[in-house]
Amino acid sequence: MRIPNHIGIIPDGNRRWAENQGLTKEKGYDLGLDPGMDMFRICKELGVKEITYYGFTVDNTKRPTVQRLAFTNACIKAVQMLAKEDAALLVLGNSDSPMFPKELLPFRERKTFGKGSIKVNFLVNYGWQWDLAKLNEETNNSKLNCYKYINSNDISRIDLIIRWGGRRRLSGFLPVQSVYADFFVVDEYWPDFKEQHVHDALKWYSEQDITLGG
Amino acid sequence: MRIPNHIGIIPDGNRRWAENQGLTKEKGYDLGLDPGMDMFRICKELGVKEITYYGFTVDNTKRPTVQRLAFTNACIKAVQMLAKEDAALLVLGNSDSPMFPKELLPFRERKTFGKGSIKVNFLVNYGWQWDLAKLNEETNNSKLNCYKYINSNDISRIDLIIRWGGRRRLSGFLPVQSVYADFFVVDEYWPDFKEQHVHDALKWYSEQDITLGG
Repeated sequence: MRIPNHIGIIPDGNRRWAENQGLTKEKGYDLGLDPGMDMFRICKELGVKEITYYGFTVDNTKRPTVQRLAFTNACIKAVQMLAKEDAALLVLGNSDSPMFPKELLPFRERKTFGKGSIKVNFLVNYGWQWDLAKLNEETNNSKLNCYKYINSNDISRIDLIIRWGGRRRLSGFLPVQSVYADFFVVDEYWPDFKEQHVHDALKWYSEQDITLGG
Repeated sequence: MRIPNHIGIIPDGNRRWAENQGLTKEKGYDLGLDPGMDMFRICKELGVKEITYYGFTVDNTKRPTVQRLAFTNACIKAVQMLAKEDAALLVLGNSDSPMFPKELLPFRERKTFGKGSIKVNFLVNYGWQWDLAKLNEETNNSKLNCYKYINSNDISRIDLIIRWGGRRRLSGFLPVQSVYADFFVVDEYWPDFKEQHVHDALKWYSEQDITLGG
């Protein structure tokens, strides 16, 4: 089976999961922590070289405060959990804004934990417009290497994106790195994560041709 | 039923269709012309305000010459056919390159045919890197309106992308306009286009919530 170098993870459906359980929406986020760690371990064991979690976005911060605090806290906990693993960890997003939690400021530079065997990127207060804003005059060249000039330049091209929660869209997830990515949707909500979802995604991915737009 | 304002059309699978018919790959492109016109008429009747066809890309021009000439000719014919309809037509792509057919140079500025009732964008020798290359220093602002500074600034945000041919990826299609687009995949190849595919896509689309990343 061909294993993707880089998997993007869109862990959607936490609020819908909570509502289905008769809970208020913000209660869904903490239930996403264990799936996140499961996903990390599965990818590491399979030999995936890099993973990117879609934590929360600038758009998301416009939600009600109780939700914003809940997903922000869940992201802080997730990063702290990942920092106990064997990973080269980066938190990326607009840290000039008060929406970027101060607990995560030390992770804005990639830090090695353990042997740093897998690159782990965690997007926090990420915005696709913020990401592209750094493209500047030097880039006025149609053959440019866009990767060099964007704010997410330490995140490489994505091979496979797995989105939980049934939505079939990117929702602003890393537009440059995602241009050639294969996109697999799991209908179950993220808190209902099962290892089988990842195997289904990888089986499907390994049947796709890789053309990079060619 | 909620009708999307803007539909992106990725008409993939022409070469696989030709091979399945025992033809050489380049024979598949001309069979895509009638589906393209069907799609135009269906969208116009439904009241869609704008459609964008993914003609060919800078990446595609690296294919064997016989294929390149075939898809280039099919795109020229398609634009000439659309120019006989009631549409505001724009051909967009890197026209500084010899890969941009000279027959389509007059369409680089949007032209009104009939009453111009629907905006029709046709991407020819389009490259996502070329598209983003115009973002410049003025844009060094995380709240920028990216749309203003990209080469495809006359093409608006896409609500629904329909891709024929089973691949679940954007393949470099308008990364900025596609950030929030819902993505519907038809397994059949483009030459096997049926009106029902569009109705299936629209039915699915009208069941999706619209959050624009919120």
